[in-house]
Parts: sequence; structure tokens; C-alpha cells
Amino acid sequence: MPPNEEALARLSAGDALLRAIVPAREAIPALAQGRALSHAGPPLPYRAMCGPMQGALQGAMLYEGWADTPVEAHARLEAGEVRLLSNHEHGAVAPMAGVISPSMQAFIIENPTFGNRVATIGNEGIQREVLRCGAYSPAVLSRLRYLNETVMPAIAAALPEGLSLREIMAQAILMGDELHQRNVAGTLLLLMALLPQIASPPARNPAVTHLRETSQFFLNLAMAAAKALLDPLSGIPGCTIVTAISRNGVEVGIRVSATGDRWFRAPAPVPRGRYWEPYSARDANPDIGDSAIVETVGLGGAVLATAPACQQIVGSSDEEARRLQSELYAISAFQSPFFICAPAESRGSPFGLDVERIACTGITPVITTGIAHRQAGIGMIGAGIVRPPLQVFVDAWNAVRDQATESVT
Amino acid sequence: MPPNEEALARLSAGDALLRAIVPAREAIPALAQGRALSHAGPPLPYRAMCGPMQGALQGAMLYEGWADTPVEAHARLEAGEVRLLSNHEHGAVAPMAGVISPSMQAFIIENPTFGNRVATIGNEGIQREVLRCGAYSPAVLSRLRYLNETVMPAIAAALPEGLSLREIMAQAILMGDELHQRNVAGTLLLLMALLPQIASPPARNPAVTHLRETSQFFLNLAMAAAKALLDPLSGIPGCTIVTAISRNGVEVGIRVSATGDRWFRAPAPVPRGRYWEPYSARDANPDIGDSAIVETVGLGGAVLATAPACQQIVGSSDEEARRLQSELYAISAFQSPFFICAPAESRGSPFGLDVERIACTGITPVITTGIAHRQAGIGMIGAGIVRPPLQVFVDAWNAVRDQATESVT
Repeated sequence: MPPNEEALARLSAGDALLRAIVPAREAIPALAQGRALSHAGPPLPYRAMCGPMQGALQGAMLYEGWADTPVEAHARLEAGEVRLLSNHEHGAVAPMAGVISPSMQAFIIENPTFGNRVATIGNEGIQREVLRCGAYSPAVLSRLRYLNETVMPAIAAALPEGLSLREIMAQAILMGDELHQRNVAGTLLLLMALLPQIASPPARNPAVTHLRETSQFFLNLAMAAAKALLDPLSGIPGCTIVTAISRNGVEVGIRVSATGDRWFRAPAPVPRGRYWEPYSARDANPDIGDSAIVETVGLGGAVLATAPACQQIVGSSDEEARRLQSELYAISAFQSPFFICAPAESRGSPFGLDVERIACTGITPVITTGIAHRQAGIGMIGAGIVRPPLQVFVDAWNAVRDQATESVT
Repeated sequence: MPPNEEALARLSAGDALLRAIVPAREAIPALAQGRALSHAGPPLPYRAMCGPMQGALQGAMLYEGWADTPVEAHARLEAGEVRLLSNHEHGAVAPMAGVISPSMQAFIIENPTFGNRVATIGNEGIQREVLRCGAYSPAVLSRLRYLNETVMPAIAAALPEGLSLREIMAQAILMGDELHQRNVAGTLLLLMALLPQIASPPARNPAVTHLRETSQFFLNLAMAAAKALLDPLSGIPGCTIVTAISRNGVEVGIRVSATGDRWFRAPAPVPRGRYWEPYSARDANPDIGDSAIVETVGLGGAVLATAPACQQIVGSSDEEARRLQSELYAISAFQSPFFICAPAESRGSPFGLDVERIACTGITPVITTGIAHRQAGIGMIGAGIVRPPLQVFVDAWNAVRDQATESVT
């Protein structure tokens, strides 16, 4: 089978089941060794990090009781007292700064066909002040505590056995979600799946109340499901399909199947955004988060055309979203076997971002993204559209070709 | 203010609040006088009715205990022992045969701006065998009993105060519903609105279980809300806006603002459909139901373009739905102030079907419709697209012009 076809076959054979909720230190064993925190994007040292990622790490230090003030947290992080891990390198993903600390509760998502597992955390909420965008006020920490100590156990108590997130995602994109900046339907469908197992009146159940108030709750699960579906596609010789896109707020990194876990990196651009009052593009941090894994599996920007309400959120339009989607078909090797955006035509979303096609056409993927304030401590300030730099795809394509040459010689 | 602008102003000022659930005999007083049943579409005598409407009336006779067998029910109906009422003429709407009997439970929807009220019944379910499509087996009657005696009281117990159905509808069309053949999101959003008031574990609550299983539940409410919004537009001299489209399975009838409650009628066409196995177009009854009121308010076929999953249900396509929508803009006087199908462009759905534009262009409205088997006792066999005959709009347009001439002379 040609290598890209092999990738499609592995994707098609997979699923993404929500298996359990466990402490992050169990889900990500490296977090349990000494003091460690994980973060979005390719690895980088603390001093090189952007404001919102430094802020989120400071907040996690406070949350874990490893520092009493942001200033102390900053000093300890700068002194290298805490090991910093890249989520993707430890089987995890999380949005924006993506910081995961050992005592947070983590979802475990499994691809049952291949047995690989992915961890992610719960979504704090949709207000401006959130840890994932670098805020760390007492209110942020208190909500984080409520999420992990009250909401996540309530969800755990209501989890049905082996819930297919892939199926929820397939339904959600037919309900106006693109599953990156809009997860209204995904969150409702998750809540529907929990309802039969809830043993208390809904108004008094923290899982019900949190999910009703947090329309982005499903994002984290969509991301982990995307990674669970994509990880088995890694390491196919000659395969030019992108298996991960991730950003740490300074650099964008991508992985391509043939070259396995290797990152191809370039400076992260600032998204073109729609800002919340009183913020503007001057306040924006460059592109950040593991969340572009949903675009890698053919969602997010790839299905913005069928998510009219999301077009508004990211400052796009019906016309632009349609044009972007046709560009994505041009650089994708396949249509998704799962995510059917035009059922009457059996048309799957663009799947299989192909570094060869990207390098040859100069067309880059389209990511619908949240935007963090560039300073630590503030939070989310808008949402928009961003395209990773062409260079990372060109570099990856050259590396795949070099590998092929080496294996011949 | 020009008459059509006056219609838009009245629509824009309105809302549709779900107020209560009461027995149909209270909601529709004419049902409480002797033996009476109501039905969809313009009035017609029992002998002239189509199979599914006769079947539904027979089923209602059995349900009310007014006959022991369908044959006896048929004889009594034929003998004129039961008064038959047109829903629209008694402040009610219901899908397909639309039969309402006195002991069913009815939703009351109010337009608070004008004080007018509309009644509708609960939706039985989405299986083939349903009373609304002319089935009357013991299983149908037993489900109808469960709906009215168990589900509707459970919903009544969980109703929040003054729930705006208009707002739910606005959200639902951004979640892939066109609110005629697809009401998945509307039904979920209704359930979400009930949840906080539910005092028992969800798995044991009949409102929760019925709504989770009945993705079309919201249809009846969308219809009643549409009528509640449209009724105040009736009776504006010179106004050429359609205020109701309704079908009794034999004839299509429309009402236009200037001529008030007068029906303009023509034979009902058979929808172009997508049939459920083993049925085909040969089995189809002509177009039936009050449900085209959702198209009259700018939903259903008018927003099929943003409901990809529904395109498949009715055998349409992305391309066709877009073309149909642009035709609808050509015959509509306005864009809906409520139902925004492209938020980034602030583009409302086509609203204000204008008999003048329809008569002049020859373009007729587009209805996404369920299809009933033409024989009594069978039920629903598919869904499709139908366009009312041009003649009714031409007749209405002529009547509005005649009226204007008379008022001048």
C-alpha cells in the first residue's frame, strides 16, 4: 500500500473512546517524578517562553502549592526547580498554554484499535481569566480547584462505558461546531451521554451545571480524540501526511508521519483576530496551543464553512470559509472517513494535510484559534484565524525526501 | 408605513413564549363542545379527506373511546357524528394530519407583544407508525397515551417561566436544524431549558427520556411559535405577505395578510422525496400538514442551505439548497430579524413570502416536508421537498389587488 494510503487506512481503522478520569500524575507518569509541569507545543526553556505560557506555569505553581506568589513562582521556574515537559512528547494535549499539573484531573482517551492513549484536562470555562491563557488570579485558581475537585469527579461518576468521542465529533460538525472555537453541540452531546448515569437532580449536579455554562468544554476532548486517532499514523516511511501541528506561543512545530516524533519549527505568527473589548491586535500573543491537532485531523478551520456561527467568532465570513475549505482540499490527500461535512454528497472534511502538496502549492493549513494576551496574568482576548508558516512544511517535505534518499543509498 | 413594512415591524416586535401545558379541550374551546376533532390544513369534509388524515381521525376516535374499531370510527366520522375543525381556524397547528383530540395535552405558546396564543400537541416520536401520519395500531395509541399522560405532565413540571422559543429557534438554525425535517438541536436546547427544574434523576424522568429519543420533538413547538409570530401580521390592508401555508393532504391553502383568514386553495402536489425502505413515490400521499408555517416564518426550506444533515434527509444537496435559498430571497420581501443564518454577514433567512413577487417571478416557496403513506393505518414513509402550486399565490395576489380597487371605488 502506498504510504499515504497506509496512513488513511490506519486513521479509518481507529476510534477515540473516553475511558476514564484519573489524576494527571497517573495519566502522565513523568509529572509524578519530582516537580514537573507540562505545556503546549514543542519543548522550550522557561526563559524563552511567551508571557501567557509563563503566566500559566506560574499559576500552576500556585495551584500545586509550590509557590506562594507569582513572583516566587517565576523565580523558581527561572531557577529550573521544575522540569518542563512538552505535552505532545508525553501523550497529552491541552489548549492554549496547555499547562497540566500533577494534581489536576485528566481524561484518558484510547484508540482501541491500536491501544494508544492520550490525556487531557477539563476545560475551566469561557471567561477571559483562565489559566490556559496565562491568568493566575485567586479567582482563576479557585475555579480550577472547583473544576478538578468537584466537576471532574461528577463527570467521572456519570461516564458511560467506552463513549466514542469520534461519533460525537461527527454529529457535532453537523450541528454547527467546527470543534475548535465552537464546541456548543459537542458539549451538549457529551452532557446527553452523561445524563442517563446521573443519579441526582440535574440542577444540583456539578457536571450538568459546569457543562451547561462551558460551551467550550468539549474542545479538550476533541483535541485528545484527534491525537488518539492520529498518533498511530506516525512512522510510516515515505508518508507525507502531517500528524501534529502544535504551538508554544513562540514557535509553531509540526510532525509528519515519515519522520516520527521530530519537530519542524518556525516562529509562530500572530493570528488575524476578532478581539474582545477593550483589546486589540497590539495585545495579542503569537499563535499558541496544542489545539491545532483538531485541524490536523480535518476539523476546526477545515470545517469552518459549515459552522456559520463560528465564522463570526473568528472574524471570517461564509464566502471566506468556503474559499479556505477549497484551499484545504487542495493540500489534503483525502477526505475524512468520519467527519462528513456534506452528507448528501458523502463529502468528508479535508483530511491528510500533505507536506508535499503544501510545499508545492504554497497553500498552508487554516487554524481557527483562541488568542491570549501577550502578558502573563491577563487571559483570553479574542479568537481568529492563523496559518502556520510555510517553512515548517517545506522543511518537513525536504526531510522526508532526504530520508527516502538515505534509505535507497 | 407601507403595508409590507408594517408586517415586518409587527413580526420584529413579537416573540413566542412557551407558557403552559393544558388539556387540548381548554386550549381549543371548540373541541370541548360535543364531539369534535381538529386537523391540519384548510377545512374539508371527512369524505373528501386523504387516507392518512382519515386514519389519524379514526385513531383519535379510538384514543378518545368514541369507537372501538377503525371501521366503527370510520362509520361514525362518515355519518358526521363528530365535528371536524381546521387547526388554523382555531388557533392551533400540528404536523402532518395534525389531528388534535380533546383529551390530548396541548402546549400554549403566546406572543406577549400582541397577546395572541397558539396551541399545539406533543410529538409522539420518529418511528413510522405515528398517528400524525395516519397510523392507529394499539402500539400507536399506547405511545400516544404515554406521551399525554406521562411525558407531557413531566414536561409541564419542568417548564421554566416564559421560555422564548424564538430564541431557541435562532440558536437551533446555527446548529444544523432547519426546524422542519431536522429538530435535533431545538429538541436538545428545549431539554437543556427543562433540566434545571427537573427534580428527579434524569434517567428516571419521562421528559428527559422522551426528548432524548425524539429528535423531532421540537417541530411542533417551532410550528406553534411560527404561527404565534405570524398571526399578528394578518389583516394589514394592501399587505402582500403570506401569513400561513397549510395542507390537508388534498389541497394546499395559503393566507395572505391583506385578506385575513381567507384561504386560497389548489390541489396539493406529491413531494419529491427520499423514501424509507420498502416504500416509494407510488405510496406517497400528496403534501400534508400545518408544518409549512415554519417556512412561512423563514425557516425549513428557507434555511436548508445551512443544515447539511437535513439536505440528506430530504434528498437534496448542498448545491441545490444554496440555489433554492437564493430563489427564496428573490420572492421574500425581507430578511428575518430573528433567524440569522450567516451571523458574520448579519444575513437573516428569507422572510416575507410576497405573493406579488411570487406571482411575477413564477418562483414558489420551498417546503421540506415529511411524507405520509397515502393509505390510512400505515404512517410516515419518507421526507422530501415540495413547492406549493403557483396558482394559490396568483389568486391571492389578484384578491389583494381587487381589494385595493374596491377600497378606492
